Amino acid sequence: MKLTQENLKDLADGAAFLATGGGGDPYLGRLLAQHAVAEFGMPEVIPASALGDDDAVFTSAMFGAPTVLVEKVASGEDIDLSIRRLAEVVGRQPVAIAPIEIGGINSMVPIAAAARLGLPLVDCDGMGRAFPEIQMVTFNVYGVSATPAVVVDEHLETVIIETHDAKRAENLARAAAVQMGLSCMISCYPLTGRQVKDFGVHDTLSIALGIGEARREGARQGDPIDAMLAYLRQTRYYNHTKVLFDGKITDLRRETKGGYTIGHCEIAALDGSDDAFHLEFQNENLVARHNGRTVAIVPDLITAVDRETGLAITTEALKYGQRIKVIATSAAPVMRTPEALAIFGPNAFGLDEAFVPLEVLNKDIA
Amino acid sequence: MKLTQENLKDLADGAAFLATGGGGDPYLGRLLAQHAVAEFGMPEVIPASALGDDDAVFTSAMFGAPTVLVEKVASGEDIDLSIRRLAEVVGRQPVAIAPIEIGGINSMVPIAAAARLGLPLVDCDGMGRAFPEIQMVTFNVYGVSATPAVVVDEHLETVIIETHDAKRAENLARAAAVQMGLSCMISCYPLTGRQVKDFGVHDTLSIALGIGEARREGARQGDPIDAMLAYLRQTRYYNHTKVLFDGKITDLRRETKGGYTIGHCEIAALDGSDDAFHLEFQNENLVARHNGRTVAIVPDLITAVDRETGLAITTEALKYGQRIKVIATSAAPVMRTPEALAIFGPNAFGLDEAFVPLEVLNKDIA
Repeated sequence: MKLTQENLKDLADGAAFLATGGGGDPYLGRLLAQHAVAEFGMPEVIPASALGDDDAVFTSAMFGAPTVLVEKVASGEDIDLSIRRLAEVVGRQPVAIAPIEIGGINSMVPIAAAARLGLPLVDCDGMGRAFPEIQMVTFNVYGVSATPAVVVDEHLETVIIETHDAKRAENLARAAAVQMGLSCMISCYPLTGRQVKDFGVHDTLSIALGIGEARREGARQGDPIDAMLAYLRQTRYYNHTKVLFDGKITDLRRETKGGYTIGHCEIAALDGSDDAFHLEFQNENLVARHNGRTVAIVPDLITAVDRETGLAITTEALKYGQRIKVIATSAAPVMRTPEALAIFGPNAFGLDEAFVPLEVLNKDIA
Repeated sequence: MKLTQENLKDLADGAAFLATGGGGDPYLGRLLAQHAVAEFGMPEVIPASALGDDDAVFTSAMFGAPTVLVEKVASGEDIDLSIRRLAEVVGRQPVAIAPIEIGGINSMVPIAAAARLGLPLVDCDGMGRAFPEIQMVTFNVYGVSATPAVVVDEHLETVIIETHDAKRAENLARAAAVQMGLSCMISCYPLTGRQVKDFGVHDTLSIALGIGEARREGARQGDPIDAMLAYLRQTRYYNHTKVLFDGKITDLRRETKGGYTIGHCEIAALDGSDDAFHLEFQNENLVARHNGRTVAIVPDLITAVDRETGLAITTEALKYGQRIKVIATSAAPVMRTPEALAIFGPNAFGLDEAFVPLEVLNKDIA
């Protein structure tokens, strides 16, 4: 896979789709990546399979509250410092940068990081979507330590966290982020090539780009949403996908609590039927219910898109009266194991129901 | 100066006096020091003047809420880890350990640290008393960075903080400490020998021991408080000291807010006169007023002691009906400069009055 500056818009749009309503606004992430690429050149994108088992691979991400992140952009020096301090702490130099999260801003930050550091970017991440907390990563599910984790703020002040478990790292990083104005850079989960290959969600940069390209091409031909779905169906694991509902937001409850955007919305059918559709979110969309019946649930992907353009709508940007389609997409198998569901399944978000795969909940799914 | 196990009780009592009501209960710190000394031997105590200018000197302290600290004792491994990680981060091995705070528990923790690490202990600290926050240290006043600072909890989880200013370090360390149950070890202000010599408050371990010995000897002869005051008067800078009031606590307001013990008490004269005495505290005693007139104010030392035994009473241990004497003692000159008062003078604690030295407020003082 080869990325160009011209790809970044499509990649950001695809990443916004995979962000399932969260992940922050990729527009600012794209600016960051564009600036870094203009100055340092586009990084080479490599598949995880190109990594040596013992290669050191570092992640780079923004960390904080999406509502604050959209108002601030990393300077780039904060990215460099987070990687440099992590290298000093673990005593190894990274040979590549990988996204920890493909959804939203954090699809773009690693591009900037890899460009600035002159390192290749791995086409693979730790969730194949977006999630709100540090422990909600496949690498954690399968035993990789989230720490040392280096958090850096805009003033280049640094907090380095070393814990025995990823949830503790989340708590400590979150506490630091609050002091840092809820907008900082983090480099965590220092990985080996072997770990990336074994536990990563593969090809997610390529797929995000593919989704964005399909949408744009589809829009030109009159149906961006159909085009995205057709593209997803031929991918390796996002292959189950469907439009769950087509409607208009008639009720919206949303609050910012503990740095999270939490709430739900009701969507009424546009065809005048009595169909009721309900969407709950915590940064990301968590569960969709159609006439009271669950039709998709985390970690499967639930994305609200503009029903005309097919562009993803973040949960912060949902508005009363908005006309949207809600699309569900199957998560990667590595995200659906019992170990994985214990970390980021429905119960991890306070939902009192078990995970059921999208394709089981919807017999009519492609 | 040579310390023995037998000295530790006197040293703890003297340190409790210098803690001016805060600093945590030195009893548990003493247990920690006793255990470390029993296992590793008593560290050599050296004056700051024995340090080479380029020697690396590390501090070791407990950090958190006094009310929690008294319920937990450091394992010792947390102390070792805080020092080891700091050495790794700064890339230098310490040649000595210094107390950052002589008041309370933190007079004892450095003894344990020095014993465990086989290093000498410097007879000098960064305030000559106790203070609640990381930036309230002479080293900060005179331009030494508080960071890198290493915070370690009982599970040996670690947060390393690197900031441009000490108040930011305080905020980040406090946020970490909250996540760590408000009881952790910290090693901060990595110092050079030159900095210790230039900016430290000298001989404070010796003086704490001297205060404790004077009290014990005085008690045997019938007047522990007089004996302490006589001892203090012949020291280099605690030489202005007096009993401000002798009375009984008739009103006590105290709450734990943001990890601090905050409040005030009213003390009535035992002689039946209408004299009113008022004491305000935030962990440490901040200001004493006699019939409405300020008679001592931070950073000068204000200590409530049991009127019979002369033992210091922490602000957490103040009780309605308690018979106490309130003693004020002059702070070291290095603590009374305009730069120092900007960091830990009355205004830094929200008091709306200027610092006036004890010996100016009290014309009758010895």
